Amino acid sequence: MSTDIDYSSLMSSGLPAPAPKWQGFPEYNFIGGHNDRNSIPVEDMISAVTNVLKRDGASLATYGMQHGPQGYKPLREFIVSKLAQRSGISTSIDNILITSGSGQALNLVNAVLCEPGDTVLFEQFSYASAITRIRNIGVNPIGVPLDENGMRMDLLEEKLIELQCKSIKPKYLYVIPTVQNPGGSIMPDENRQELLRLARKYDFPILEDECYADLIWDSKRPTALAGMDDGNRVIHCGSFSKTIAPALRVGYLVADWHLLSQIIAVKNDSGTGALEQMMLAEYCSNHFDGHIDSLSKTLKNKLDTLVEALQVHFGTSAEFELPEGGIFLWISLPEQVDTIRLGQLAAGEGIALNPGPEWSTDQKPASSKLRLCFGHPSKETIEEGVSKLAEICHREFGVPLRGANKVRS
Amino acid sequence: MSTDIDYSSLMSSGLPAPAPKWQGFPEYNFIGGHNDRNSIPVEDMISAVTNVLKRDGASLATYGMQHGPQGYKPLREFIVSKLAQRSGISTSIDNILITSGSGQALNLVNAVLCEPGDTVLFEQFSYASAITRIRNIGVNPIGVPLDENGMRMDLLEEKLIELQCKSIKPKYLYVIPTVQNPGGSIMPDENRQELLRLARKYDFPILEDECYADLIWDSKRPTALAGMDDGNRVIHCGSFSKTIAPALRVGYLVADWHLLSQIIAVKNDSGTGALEQMMLAEYCSNHFDGHIDSLSKTLKNKLDTLVEALQVHFGTSAEFELPEGGIFLWISLPEQVDTIRLGQLAAGEGIALNPGPEWSTDQKPASSKLRLCFGHPSKETIEEGVSKLAEICHREFGVPLRGANKVRS
Repeated sequence: MSTDIDYSSLMSSGLPAPAPKWQGFPEYNFIGGHNDRNSIPVEDMISAVTNVLKRDGASLATYGMQHGPQGYKPLREFIVSKLAQRSGISTSIDNILITSGSGQALNLVNAVLCEPGDTVLFEQFSYASAITRIRNIGVNPIGVPLDENGMRMDLLEEKLIELQCKSIKPKYLYVIPTVQNPGGSIMPDENRQELLRLARKYDFPILEDECYADLIWDSKRPTALAGMDDGNRVIHCGSFSKTIAPALRVGYLVADWHLLSQIIAVKNDSGTGALEQMMLAEYCSNHFDGHIDSLSKTLKNKLDTLVEALQVHFGTSAEFELPEGGIFLWISLPEQVDTIRLGQLAAGEGIALNPGPEWSTDQKPASSKLRLCFGHPSKETIEEGVSKLAEICHREFGVPLRGANKVRS
Repeated sequence: MSTDIDYSSLMSSGLPAPAPKWQGFPEYNFIGGHNDRNSIPVEDMISAVTNVLKRDGASLATYGMQHGPQGYKPLREFIVSKLAQRSGISTSIDNILITSGSGQALNLVNAVLCEPGDTVLFEQFSYASAITRIRNIGVNPIGVPLDENGMRMDLLEEKLIELQCKSIKPKYLYVIPTVQNPGGSIMPDENRQELLRLARKYDFPILEDECYADLIWDSKRPTALAGMDDGNRVIHCGSFSKTIAPALRVGYLVADWHLLSQIIAVKNDSGTGALEQMMLAEYCSNHFDGHIDSLSKTLKNKLDTLVEALQVHFGTSAEFELPEGGIFLWISLPEQVDTIRLGQLAAGEGIALNPGPEWSTDQKPASSKLRLCFGHPSKETIEEGVSKLAEICHREFGVPLRGANKVRS
């Protein structure tokens, strides 16, 4: 009759490593989708939540308010108009499901479409959390290499033929065509058409993730895949985490009703948080465009700082394509640099970064790459952090040879 | 090269039935944990959210604000003090995880402890969604009969011996000792001690659900199991859905760190909605006790209306124990009444009710029982709805024979 129980003996197999105790954020925080603190529109949020609670607060008494499991109707209405205006997608509130962040949207699609042993196609370098979610449920992520335009369509078709020979049919293809994560590219119109052609030819659905698509430097962008598709083949997701605030957990899925009705059935969370949906609906209807313009300028400015710091401290040792939007830069270092090791050493000095292999379906091609997020740290922190990182990198790997116009000893 | 894709051919096996299109709430809504519309403290919520956003709004720029994956620190601090004051539980913010409703808390415990083929013990009549979540992951719910004090400890030990003989070790026992759902009973102190003794003897953990425990008519109640346990055996969960507002999706788990660290690792939602956590922390610190007193009186009043309506329209055909708190009444009708059929007929006339079998691990003992929730409908709606329900019941099953002092034809 022991007082204590040994939980290890009861735990399921295949669980991830337990979480460590939270130690706070590192001083130089170049990871995560965090945003600029000064860009949170606190006063306008207060007005929005005040107005919407006065009008509609009593409806908090019912699960899903009065709007059912798909989410707060005014927020779905805003999303319909935003998707039409910005992404060229024509849809209706009946095809939208509000989710608790886009992460839940990915989980729901996976729950409905994927079983262990299945295959899902990815850009070879892609959103780490999307790859991890797939791996955690025993599904095989297959990567297709990218160039400056995103996923390479010729190599995609090669991969599709190869899979067909093995009688493997991918459950879906996950793609971030507009501000690719981590590359920051925007897939050109003709590649999008080709991707849709291949999806029809090889008969697979596409999950298009547009979490960063509203944060672009130049407002011109091609129509989303979901807007080009004349059938039901594209599942589309997005989020307010990057455009408004990440701690608000509100994303959305747009899909064919046949699929969406099945997804709603497995979303057993009694709805996504109502107060956040209400505030966002009210705030975004009045302020979204202006906020996005201003936030994008702030982010572009921080990117310029990061690029300059890299040029000063890494020189030609750091190679990258300039992203067309977003909050991250994908960097290639000389091939002797193992960015997993670099990340461990940097962590010891208060710098957090994403080693390339975490952001890749395949370890090797990403071993000298890393992702630095620039949305959250101040410009001073960016400069200092990059300088320190260059020193650590030089100490361990002998590169960069030259920093801040001085040869390193 | 078909434009459309047939999603049926891609879907996983064992999915629940697809969701129907949302049709709005029924006129006589006696289901779901909905609350009283007039009891939503809209003005105080506006003040709370205004204050907290002014002070802490910029922290929405980071996932989890500055407080890590366990949730907003001031909310965890409020929960620690509420649990000490109301439930007799001594814990710290390090052992609390904020969840997106208690439903997510149940999912997380299940994800860490349960695999298909496992067994979980329940009160024979219990929270439908807890039973369904267990069934949906291929786990076997075993029910222990109840009496007016909740789960029967003699029958629990019988069941434990029976399982032991079959070499089956339950992964945990799920129990709602304070305002049992659906029975509304409060388990006496000595039964709680006995339950803990059995948990030690047969070495299983207990998941104690206190979602309704703050809504009791008489503020005296025994210490929670988690407060009596001198080890790590009790996992405790609760929610703000019933005490403040269900559309806010905020619950919590209290557990031993060994278990909790594993649970945090599988909670892959990037945190629970920050705005709801912030508002609740601010609101509850100032208003929780007063709000609960007033809400409990409102609910007791609605219960009285429901009981009176049942006496008028069902007479002796409706039997029930008076619940000691909460928002539901568990009713036994004469045995010829099939409440699943009654529920179908009632739905056709705008009345929603929970047939007993949905709220039971075993179909048969619950076939003539039903659960009516009284928190949401107005007193007039309760009276009309019960009157209509009695008519439908008489028409189909010949009972009640007498209603509103008249013999039915």
